[in-house]
Amino acid sequence: MDDVGAKKRRPGGRSAQVRARVQAAVIELLADSRLEEVTIPRVAERAGVHQATLYRRWGNIAGLVDDIVAERVGELAPIPDTGTLRGDLELAAVRFAEVIAPLGGIMIRAAALATPDADSSVTFHTRATQLQAMLDRAAARGEKAPTLTELLEGITAPLYFHELFFGRPADAEHARTLVDRLLIYVEASR
Amino acid sequence: MDDVGAKKRRPGGRSAQVRARVQAAVIELLADSRLEEVTIPRVAERAGVHQATLYRRWGNIAGLVDDIVAERVGELAPIPDTGTLRGDLELAAVRFAEVIAPLGGIMIRAAALATPDADSSVTFHTRATQLQAMLDRAAARGEKAPTLTELLEGITAPLYFHELFFGRPADAEHARTLVDRLLIYVEASR
Repeated sequence: MDDVGAKKRRPGGRSAQVRARVQAAVIELLADSRLEEVTIPRVAERAGVHQATLYRRWGNIAGLVDDIVAERVGELAPIPDTGTLRGDLELAAVRFAEVIAPLGGIMIRAAALATPDADSSVTFHTRATQLQAMLDRAAARGEKAPTLTELLEGITAPLYFHELFFGRPADAEHARTLVDRLLIYVEASR
Repeated sequence: MDDVGAKKRRPGGRSAQVRARVQAAVIELLADSRLEEVTIPRVAERAGVHQATLYRRWGNIAGLVDDIVAERVGELAPIPDTGTLRGDLELAAVRFAEVIAPLGGIMIRAAALATPDADSSVTFHTRATQLQAMLDRAAARGEKAPTLTELLEGITAPLYFHELFFGRPADAEHARTLVDRLLIYVEASR
């Protein structure tokens, strides 16, 4: 048991180790338990960390899940800039599928825990702003580009939902299929 | 249409009243509380029903939510048969949006609670079978029809996700936009 509230000075040090242990505990609980069983006391027990530390650092389960999602989506899936819209979309979609796949079936459940009010999600808005910039670059190159809504609804929503609909995460091939579909629609509708 | 344990004799009687009170309590809790706070004891307290009754009849929160989703999706959104694919898709999409909208922001969270394992969802499979029949009718009339996957990913996933992405449920106009998009894609890709 340790306490990392006041000691945040060494990245990769004790604070980072606690964060990694806590994140792993949340992911294991999300995978193994009913959602109602994913609670701060259970996370604390599994991670071997004081409950007080979790409450102080993350507030509640939603804060913890937000932290995990922000790290995964932010670090593992940066917005690409390949020089073509198709290249950008394929890389973004495949990376996004790769972020979801290793987390198994928990992403949709984590999203539900993390964002009871979507407008409060800094992660989502940051990501949306970056995706809009990607679409603006395509438009500036003279490419026919989807709107941000068409992109979110044509690629992100199905990737999130694949697990729920089909019982398994989307793979890279399916991510590319979604890009193909969106670009066929954009080409035909402009 | 439903299975209410041993007491099925009086529709609209005591059993149905309890079910309605319990469903209302779950929906209120989903709207007001963090997901981790939606528990059988809290539902029992709010509905004024013994916890033992809830455990016996629904098993757990997931069972309760499955019952609600099955009723809403099953009764309020039957699969239409208008004679054209566009007519069927529009009616199905608008009805689906109407089922989601009155439930406010809870559907996505309810879905997360209801279906940790998508393959176990009888509701989903029943619905998928009905939608496939709708697409088969279109194909039999000689219309270009999407696959079931294209339909689920092009319309259902965005309708589920609208609240999460945009902080408000999709309305009928947006449901029709999704149908337009899907049909433009189908027309261009076949």
